[in-house]
Amino acid sequence: MMNEWLECTLKSLNLTDSMKRPDGFTRLGYSEEELEAMAVFKQVSEELGLKVRRDEAGNLFARWEGVSENVVMTGSHLDTVENGGGYDGAAGVLCSLGAVKKLKEHGFVPQASIEVVCFASEESARFGVSTIGSKSVSGILEPAVQEVKDRHGITVKQAVESVGLKWENMLNAERSKDEILSFIELHIEQGTQIEDHGAKFGVVRGVACPIRLKVKAGGMAGHTGTTPMGKRRDALAALAPLISFVSNTAEALSAASSKPLVATVSTLDVKPNVMNVIPGYAGAGIDIRSVDDQLKRKMADEIIAFCRGLEEEFNVTMSIETLVDNSSILLDGKLMARVRDAGEQLGYQAFEMDSGAGHDVMNMAAKWPSALVFIPCEKGISHHPDEFTSLEDLSIGVDILAEVLKQEAGD
Amino acid sequence: MMNEWLECTLKSLNLTDSMKRPDGFTRLGYSEEELEAMAVFKQVSEELGLKVRRDEAGNLFARWEGVSENVVMTGSHLDTVENGGGYDGAAGVLCSLGAVKKLKEHGFVPQASIEVVCFASEESARFGVSTIGSKSVSGILEPAVQEVKDRHGITVKQAVESVGLKWENMLNAERSKDEILSFIELHIEQGTQIEDHGAKFGVVRGVACPIRLKVKAGGMAGHTGTTPMGKRRDALAALAPLISFVSNTAEALSAASSKPLVATVSTLDVKPNVMNVIPGYAGAGIDIRSVDDQLKRKMADEIIAFCRGLEEEFNVTMSIETLVDNSSILLDGKLMARVRDAGEQLGYQAFEMDSGAGHDVMNMAAKWPSALVFIPCEKGISHHPDEFTSLEDLSIGVDILAEVLKQEAGD
Repeated sequence: MMNEWLECTLKSLNLTDSMKRPDGFTRLGYSEEELEAMAVFKQVSEELGLKVRRDEAGNLFARWEGVSENVVMTGSHLDTVENGGGYDGAAGVLCSLGAVKKLKEHGFVPQASIEVVCFASEESARFGVSTIGSKSVSGILEPAVQEVKDRHGITVKQAVESVGLKWENMLNAERSKDEILSFIELHIEQGTQIEDHGAKFGVVRGVACPIRLKVKAGGMAGHTGTTPMGKRRDALAALAPLISFVSNTAEALSAASSKPLVATVSTLDVKPNVMNVIPGYAGAGIDIRSVDDQLKRKMADEIIAFCRGLEEEFNVTMSIETLVDNSSILLDGKLMARVRDAGEQLGYQAFEMDSGAGHDVMNMAAKWPSALVFIPCEKGISHHPDEFTSLEDLSIGVDILAEVLKQEAGD
Repeated sequence: MMNEWLECTLKSLNLTDSMKRPDGFTRLGYSEEELEAMAVFKQVSEELGLKVRRDEAGNLFARWEGVSENVVMTGSHLDTVENGGGYDGAAGVLCSLGAVKKLKEHGFVPQASIEVVCFASEESARFGVSTIGSKSVSGILEPAVQEVKDRHGITVKQAVESVGLKWENMLNAERSKDEILSFIELHIEQGTQIEDHGAKFGVVRGVACPIRLKVKAGGMAGHTGTTPMGKRRDALAALAPLISFVSNTAEALSAASSKPLVATVSTLDVKPNVMNVIPGYAGAGIDIRSVDDQLKRKMADEIIAFCRGLEEEFNVTMSIETLVDNSSILLDGKLMARVRDAGEQLGYQAFEMDSGAGHDVMNMAAKWPSALVFIPCEKGISHHPDEFTSLEDLSIGVDILAEVLKQEAGD
């Protein structure tokens, strides 16, 4: 009964008849597609008897009125990366709604009000800026974000206004410290540690926020046939060793540390990018993550030093810009214990771990006691059409969330 | 007088008031911009008393009727790469017209007819296919070319028809073997060998036609924060060593050989190319050139073998496609000697060399005795807004071409 509802609602939230789609799901932040998924969220919430409100940042809150005005909040997001999966974000929204459904079916009467949130624009896929919705709620959205453009030249401000919001009102989305008692997010793990450790769910201690660098190599374009090898200032040839360096150094630093570190050259743009011209420009985007902020900093510093060497070796200029440098975030110990105990009392083995990915919870944790629950996803595959979490695991997520909400909102 | 005409006509052919433009010149093959430059060519030719005909492939021929129907042809092209210079192609067209102007002013009466040609779509910048116009004239254009698309999805056939031609008639552009006596192209060197050897112009022995490979690495996209370094199948990390390998191997092979070789990873595309996703795909375009076909083949074979190693090392798939594999072309020895002697009798030091770039002459040479004259360009810079050739060097080009045309068309 619950499983059928989960399966059906999962598809509805993903605007699909089948979760197996060769191109996966593309619902960028503040797009028509995200709006459509959010409309489904509203409909499902109303069917559960919740009252839905859209805030000034485009977040949706589905509220179960309690005796008090205080709020216990749970939820995640419905936007995706390009050609992503249908579970990243959606699983958390779904399980939160499922938990409310279960509590309602069991006749639970909440003392505090319960809100299921669907945050807007969590992924950085569109703008390179993540978690815009939850940043607005916790009051840490930087005004400069409005100028950031997507690959089509559309700014965050324009995107926000294209879905019927007003940029000037975004700051009004902030919620007060007193109003919210706690926030619990459920998310798919996007890794295999839970399974690797024989557990059923993950309880997250900290979130590894990224340092993101943009390295731009400037050389000299020239004809590929007439410029002798020794006379070149090839920007791509200059950048190539950096790609290997990032990968190899991350592996070495991670192996030598108690906390894991990952680093990726995830974007690369070459100009003019035509067959018979030596690249005069090459730009790389680098994403570095660890819950150990010092280790992250060390990796960034090694990249910067390596680039200085490349400048000389290849006779190019290298500019290095820090796009993002966020300290990692520790979650609430008491709430973490409550989540772990709730799961284990239900008979599910917990695994305590760090999160290598950022989530909305990291912004909420800046202001309110917050917890993050992971459920497994197959082979750890995420941000990919093959992303998959079983109904069994989703159902475990519902059970754990319901139990935690009962305790948090029931005292 | 001639210099003023050269300067003014150069600007006219480039549709500009100044040759110094930060973004250079963009006149892709079979575009509106190429058509506009060709319209100027027609006007200038008619002012010189030439009769202009457009053939079925969009090439323009400006004819100076001689006593006989036989044709001595000279010329080049007016299309450019994106953000290219105003001399690549244009210098040849300009000097050919200048040579006719000079001969007319000196009262020369041609025995054979002289045609100044402006070939269509010489650069591969738009379609990855070069010299479409001259291939049509020499009858070696492959019908399959019609399907090739530019980056906007427009096919060669559509582009050709957008400028008022009919694809079915392209083959009619072929000229007969008997009609044309010889073809002489003048082009900027796009390198610094003439200057390095203290000469004033280059006489080209052979054209190094490219082998072009497309290497596609297929890995597995995944979240940059949650996929441990050891569990990745990063397509870009797999391709990075290839970029360095191509550069280093070309340098080593070239140093060990009597004929130079160059090889370039000139294009690179990464998918999904967003900050928080490990690249699941990376594709590189490689351009290999030498007049030594065996050396070129050796380079390609080493690349293929190296890719096989990367497949295993990085747990990715590598597919290697040969886009182009053209044998290098030797030009006509007798005509070459005539060009060299003509220039040296005028007091200019000649340098015999190979061409690392392809030119229209290579197609003409497949059917008719052909020669290629190089004039210097500053620092060898080409396919770049800074491309520059002095009026003095253009004027030397005019003098040499006029002398050769006089001998070829005057007997």
